[in-house]
Amino acid sequence: MVPKVIFGSGSFDQLPSILAPKRKDKAPFIYLVDDVFKKNEEFLNRLHLRFNDKLLFVSTMEEPKTEQVDTIVKNIKNEFTYQPSGIIGIGGGSVLDLAKAVSLLLTNKGSASDYQGWDLVKNKGVYHVGIPTISGTGAEVSRTAILTGPEKKLGLNSDFTPYDQVVLDPDLTKGVPKDQWFYTGMDCFIHCVESLNGTFLNAFSESYGEKAYDLCKEIFLTENLTDEESRAKLMMASWHGGMSIAYSQVGVAHAMSYGLSYVLGTKHGVGNCIVFDHLEEYYPKDVALFKEMVKLHDITIPQDVCSNLTEDQMEKMIDIALSLVPLWENALGDDWEAIMTRDKLRALYLKM
Amino acid sequence: MVPKVIFGSGSFDQLPSILAPKRKDKAPFIYLVDDVFKKNEEFLNRLHLRFNDKLLFVSTMEEPKTEQVDTIVKNIKNEFTYQPSGIIGIGGGSVLDLAKAVSLLLTNKGSASDYQGWDLVKNKGVYHVGIPTISGTGAEVSRTAILTGPEKKLGLNSDFTPYDQVVLDPDLTKGVPKDQWFYTGMDCFIHCVESLNGTFLNAFSESYGEKAYDLCKEIFLTENLTDEESRAKLMMASWHGGMSIAYSQVGVAHAMSYGLSYVLGTKHGVGNCIVFDHLEEYYPKDVALFKEMVKLHDITIPQDVCSNLTEDQMEKMIDIALSLVPLWENALGDDWEAIMTRDKLRALYLKM
Repeated sequence: MVPKVIFGSGSFDQLPSILAPKRKDKAPFIYLVDDVFKKNEEFLNRLHLRFNDKLLFVSTMEEPKTEQVDTIVKNIKNEFTYQPSGIIGIGGGSVLDLAKAVSLLLTNKGSASDYQGWDLVKNKGVYHVGIPTISGTGAEVSRTAILTGPEKKLGLNSDFTPYDQVVLDPDLTKGVPKDQWFYTGMDCFIHCVESLNGTFLNAFSESYGEKAYDLCKEIFLTENLTDEESRAKLMMASWHGGMSIAYSQVGVAHAMSYGLSYVLGTKHGVGNCIVFDHLEEYYPKDVALFKEMVKLHDITIPQDVCSNLTEDQMEKMIDIALSLVPLWENALGDDWEAIMTRDKLRALYLKM
Repeated sequence: MVPKVIFGSGSFDQLPSILAPKRKDKAPFIYLVDDVFKKNEEFLNRLHLRFNDKLLFVSTMEEPKTEQVDTIVKNIKNEFTYQPSGIIGIGGGSVLDLAKAVSLLLTNKGSASDYQGWDLVKNKGVYHVGIPTISGTGAEVSRTAILTGPEKKLGLNSDFTPYDQVVLDPDLTKGVPKDQWFYTGMDCFIHCVESLNGTFLNAFSESYGEKAYDLCKEIFLTENLTDEESRAKLMMASWHGGMSIAYSQVGVAHAMSYGLSYVLGTKHGVGNCIVFDHLEEYYPKDVALFKEMVKLHDITIPQDVCSNLTEDQMEKMIDIALSLVPLWENALGDDWEAIMTRDKLRALYLKM
């Protein structure tokens, strides 16, 4: 779990004083920042870079990749004699996962792809701080860093992965485009649905999942909230949703969405929505609620994304989805292989 | 926040494997255990003590004291050349707070009473593990260790106070006497009421407080749950309630209950109930719910505990309660001193 967190409108300005005692002589802080902030001078000035601190902008047009992590780590090692004082990730799930992975690969040799899986990371990473600027992924609290590698899309799941410090400032999510707000918010909603309906559920995950689920319903199905309240509550929903799956697991939508991302490069949030829209058979009540939310907010969910796949692409998509064994076990139980056959999965993908 | 937690029925048996990598050559683990387990051989065998590990039984007839902490620390330092590998607290709020304080005083010189307050602790404590055996206090997750000192009842509130590891095993709360189950559960309910109705409230605390409040209503006002479910849910309610106040504050009931404990030695759980029973003016809806819970579970709340106080005792009780400034600010706002006068407080105590 994340040992330190601050919350509140404007709390982002506490970052310099949080980092100051962690600074080691000559060792820079490396900031990985979503490139949506590239021209936002006012925002960047609030970082108060010092000495040899380095700012790296990260494009989030694509999901983060293991080779992207390897390149950043190599560049940091080439440029600096000293291991960084810390890695600060500022952005959505992609940037947050990338920063976690960079922190780990600075202290664990080899490629990020060597650590895709469960508990493969050997050494504690460099001190790392996560600051979400869009809510829903739960990456700010999770014990994984999800990366697309040469062979698979899979996270670096380990006790060393979670951030040492998180700053939750709902103001930072102002100005997120509506579609993205919705897709990423639905990532949280879907986390809860998959956790609460999974066979791995326990009272710990349930209590977090229920709270995040209730918050999502309040945010996306009522019109009671001010923008400020809605931003703050979605930030907390993301947090609790992330906690819920940290102690259980996701399910059908995530497994299938990983396949989409791997083969088509579909971003995770919208990918989840594309998939979840067709999962009435597995999550009937919640797919109905989802469709209500889509309608209420006048959101377009992309259709027919799988209709022009080559046979190779379809096979690869099925391979990737089926490789995520714990997700299927959670969703469908021990007999999952009998239920989710390759043919069944193909038929589902073809609807999307 | 607590960086590591495991949850689940039977998870207590993972303790030896959690501790093994933390063991330093010749440095013992010190177990502080509620003396209710003194004759429970089966339970004690599950601890798997090794080498020079030490088991100390703690009476919880009284609230923990600063001098009790000082004595335990002195004895540990006298007996062992090496600083302990870790301190493990196993019990209710008293034992959990005591163990946190012992961990801190092993690395911070002077008396525990020197650190009663906010952020006075200078050094990281010895590695410490908390294992609740009764649910409700939130001590397993809080950043305080509440102690009665020579001058005040006040916690050691610091970033170093929270446990490094918590084990949440609902089975350990089997066999708690009904009155104690209720009083301690109400500690959690009252945390939530005070947090949710306080001026310090924010979306972070609110989300945790609401979840714990909902769980308490489910546990204490419905008859839907099996014993097993009820135990697991109360353990989570305690956790979330503790998180809620960690990022906000408690209020009128806790301030007044501290006065009762200091002067009369009243245990914290029942003290809260004695006070809360008469706080209709401040928390009308929730005092009504509380009375409903008391009735449903056929619990006796002690009455007339203040009717025979000497004038000195009453004055001291009022002093202690009024010294807890952040609690009053949270409950009544900046003008609290105009609202909660000494006369008003005396009149309230005289009802109890």
